[in-house]
Amino acid sequence: MFDSGVVLGIDPGLSRCGYGAVRRGRGGQAEAVAYGVIRTSKDDPLELRLLALSRELEDLVDELRPTAVAVERVLFQVNVRTAMSVGQASGLAMVAAARRGIPLAHYSPNEVKQAVVGYGGADKLQVQTMVTALLRLDAMPEPPDAADALALALAHSWGGALRLRTEHAAGVGAPIGSTGGTGSAGSKLQAAVDAAIAKEGSR
Amino acid sequence: MFDSGVVLGIDPGLSRCGYGAVRRGRGGQAEAVAYGVIRTSKDDPLELRLLALSRELEDLVDELRPTAVAVERVLFQVNVRTAMSVGQASGLAMVAAARRGIPLAHYSPNEVKQAVVGYGGADKLQVQTMVTALLRLDAMPEPPDAADALALALAHSWGGALRLRTEHAAGVGAPIGSTGGTGSAGSKLQAAVDAAIAKEGSR
Repeated sequence: MFDSGVVLGIDPGLSRCGYGAVRRGRGGQAEAVAYGVIRTSKDDPLELRLLALSRELEDLVDELRPTAVAVERVLFQVNVRTAMSVGQASGLAMVAAARRGIPLAHYSPNEVKQAVVGYGGADKLQVQTMVTALLRLDAMPEPPDAADALALALAHSWGGALRLRTEHAAGVGAPIGSTGGTGSAGSKLQAAVDAAIAKEGSR
Repeated sequence: MFDSGVVLGIDPGLSRCGYGAVRRGRGGQAEAVAYGVIRTSKDDPLELRLLALSRELEDLVDELRPTAVAVERVLFQVNVRTAMSVGQASGLAMVAAARRGIPLAHYSPNEVKQAVVGYGGADKLQVQTMVTALLRLDAMPEPPDAADALALALAHSWGGALRLRTEHAAGVGAPIGSTGGTGSAGSKLQAAVDAAIAKEGSR
């Protein structure tokens, strides 16, 4: 069975930086290891906010020891000021991972929504709903930044699994414990998406 | 005599990050301690470039032990992609200083040009020319990023001196070795600007 280890997703931001770590267990089902947000106060000087964020991110990586870190790639922010601020936060996250030799992956918000909800135009509530269903959480992750980070980790965890399955299908041999070839993680996902949407619609 | 210690200016960038350190000596004249650029290659993965930049900035701060770090504040970049990249680099510079408890100052490009050249609309060549004249360098600092960083350090060094003079004038007593009150650093600057412009015009 493919074991993704712990994948840590980071939704970078200076006021709220979301983080979410998932691990795929024996049955292939993903479980949440940790999630939340790191907050810094707008009342503090910028450099002290960045230092605090940097330290919390480094502590998080040391504590969770992820095998991969997935960071949201944001190319078209609403404005330049936000882009600067997201750039500062994402840079610190990337350095925290790179300093420890942990591989990094980048996903655009659309790629994450496509992987987790099934279409790239999903809204924040849909992402929260799907993440709650897929990880069988008792409550919806709040704030949305934490759910976004979990979604990033899920997307990378599946992507890694799919890549491995593809390699197996290409001649390395059928993956042990797998009933299908490439795409079975996608089918499971689609079933979960359908179930969550049905549940959401019946409220 | 006011001693600014070493002021380190940083012109943040990912491909080229300019740095320039100045110290004001016994006569009040500023001298260059170190300047140059830290480069990272576009061929390398983003996180390795950020890690390399972060390490070089931390080494620079450890080596120069500045009493203040001045970072360029860029609010209106040409585009969002550049803003993200400048944000990443400036965040690393700020954390390098904050981690060591070194005070940080931010200046906009216009503030620096106003301080060093005399008007906010100056071009890169004028900044290079003025920095060369004011620091009595044998050659113009190249690339312009290094000159911009030296200009930042000079602007902060003068600002600190002016602030201290103002405090003295406000009742703490006349600064030892000073012939004038507030504004004498400004007058020296204006004379240097006039000389450099005259020199530039006679080419």
